[in-house]
Amino acid sequence: MKTIIPLLCTALFSLPAAQAAEQSQQAALRSPSQIIAEAPAADWRRADPDNTLFIDTRAGRVIVELASDMAPRSAANIKALARGHFYDGLSFYRVVDGFVAQAGDKTGNKPMGKAERHVPAEFSMMRRNDKAFTPIPGPDGYAPQTGFLHGFPAARNPDTGETWLVHCPGAFAFGREADINSGGSEFYIVIGGPQRYLDRNTTVFGRVLEGMEVVQKLQRGHQAMGMLENPAANEILSLRVAADLPAKEQQPIEILRTDSASFADLVAARRHRPEDWFVARPDYVDVCSVGVPSRRGDD
Amino acid sequence: MKTIIPLLCTALFSLPAAQAAEQSQQAALRSPSQIIAEAPAADWRRADPDNTLFIDTRAGRVIVELASDMAPRSAANIKALARGHFYDGLSFYRVVDGFVAQAGDKTGNKPMGKAERHVPAEFSMMRRNDKAFTPIPGPDGYAPQTGFLHGFPAARNPDTGETWLVHCPGAFAFGREADINSGGSEFYIVIGGPQRYLDRNTTVFGRVLEGMEVVQKLQRGHQAMGMLENPAANEILSLRVAADLPAKEQQPIEILRTDSASFADLVAARRHRPEDWFVARPDYVDVCSVGVPSRRGDD
Repeated sequence: MKTIIPLLCTALFSLPAAQAAEQSQQAALRSPSQIIAEAPAADWRRADPDNTLFIDTRAGRVIVELASDMAPRSAANIKALARGHFYDGLSFYRVVDGFVAQAGDKTGNKPMGKAERHVPAEFSMMRRNDKAFTPIPGPDGYAPQTGFLHGFPAARNPDTGETWLVHCPGAFAFGREADINSGGSEFYIVIGGPQRYLDRNTTVFGRVLEGMEVVQKLQRGHQAMGMLENPAANEILSLRVAADLPAKEQQPIEILRTDSASFADLVAARRHRPEDWFVARPDYVDVCSVGVPSRRGDD
Repeated sequence: MKTIIPLLCTALFSLPAAQAAEQSQQAALRSPSQIIAEAPAADWRRADPDNTLFIDTRAGRVIVELASDMAPRSAANIKALARGHFYDGLSFYRVVDGFVAQAGDKTGNKPMGKAERHVPAEFSMMRRNDKAFTPIPGPDGYAPQTGFLHGFPAARNPDTGETWLVHCPGAFAFGREADINSGGSEFYIVIGGPQRYLDRNTTVFGRVLEGMEVVQKLQRGHQAMGMLENPAANEILSLRVAADLPAKEQQPIEILRTDSASFADLVAARRHRPEDWFVARPDYVDVCSVGVPSRRGDD
């Protein structure tokens, strides 16, 4: 995710005396870009190449981090499919602007090698008192509590411990038929606003770390359900696990730890928007609008 | 906005007896697509050509409905600029993926004809007990109450009557400098998820009715602040008020009235998701996820 910056926030303006006190209070909070720039090395982690997918299209590369912890069988299955080169030559055959880009084998007949054709639903998981879950202040209409789990936007029911990953832009999930256990190879990426109503209806098991701009370049489908007339236009040239590439091609990516002090400061800054430009400060941020910063690491 | 349909919701499945009662209750609610298809003619209104902009780019046409009622001076100004052909040959010179596409005269020097260089901020308006505002059930983290006003996603404070348009995907607004009254010609379109933290910080005065897919085709900028190295790639060929075109080129668009019974049913269906495919029903919808249906009218 890119750091979000105010529009045209270039000129400073002289403040009337009445605003000075408030201004000085706001100055104690650093801006999101300052927080990210100043985050110590320990607040960053390196994405695990064994849980990173490179999806190469004609428009460029999309990099996905898998949430193996939350959806182990789904993550293992897509890695098995990637390792059998299952997706190479398939395509994003259904792309609905403002909604999702969906890819895989539309026919359902392609051999799957060592992978399973269907994996059981991993819509949510019981994780009572999980210290790794970093909550953010509510309200949220779709869940009792929202926050982040190992870098992924998530939600949970604090009473039961039920925890799930949520459909923010860039969410990576398996599609399914009516049977909840019918997913396993066709995946989709959320390309519009959040699609939170799909939470706990499909298995979200990753998010796009880099390349949403590439996904946005995919051709949209205009047949029923957003199917493309010519899916080959959105061909997947290759889909690989980063760990399987030579070390120098693994493009190490660092992600700000969502359980770090820097991330807590970032959430606060997004809530309170200390920059001078703002005249109405929201004092709130929804889970999909925080953004988990990432950057290219050193090779 | 396109109707959003569940993923791969094609196959029906036989229900265990235990679910039959719930199923029959859900069946009483029609699906969003049924509601839209069955909405009577009286529940649709025709977009006013005098408040409709056609923005033509190399990638196609973007159609914007102006909220003249909520931001009369901003709407009047952009129409005056359009009528002076101010935007023709300018470009979307700043495009940040997942955030906004911004257009206008980057230099700030282009003559403005009969338009004003800057218009006063129209961030919100006092509309106590306004019957035209259709609230939807909360919670919403950014505003005391959300809903729709003449087809536009909006929010208000019921205690004071302060009402404002909100930054959903497709929102159309004037950018500004630090001075709140510095907008007037540079506009932006929200191209990522909602940017609600900008609410009441800029003047939202329209929304994209058609052509978000075209906006998504614009080239992204990779210089500081998302500026394009070559803005001409995103040239605006022409920007016109629909009413100024010959009648047969006005492409009449019909919009579902947000104060109609059909729209109330649509909000309920989006909240409860009666379709069989869902196993977890949200019982909630945020103001940016309802979608105000529109369709081409008869010429």
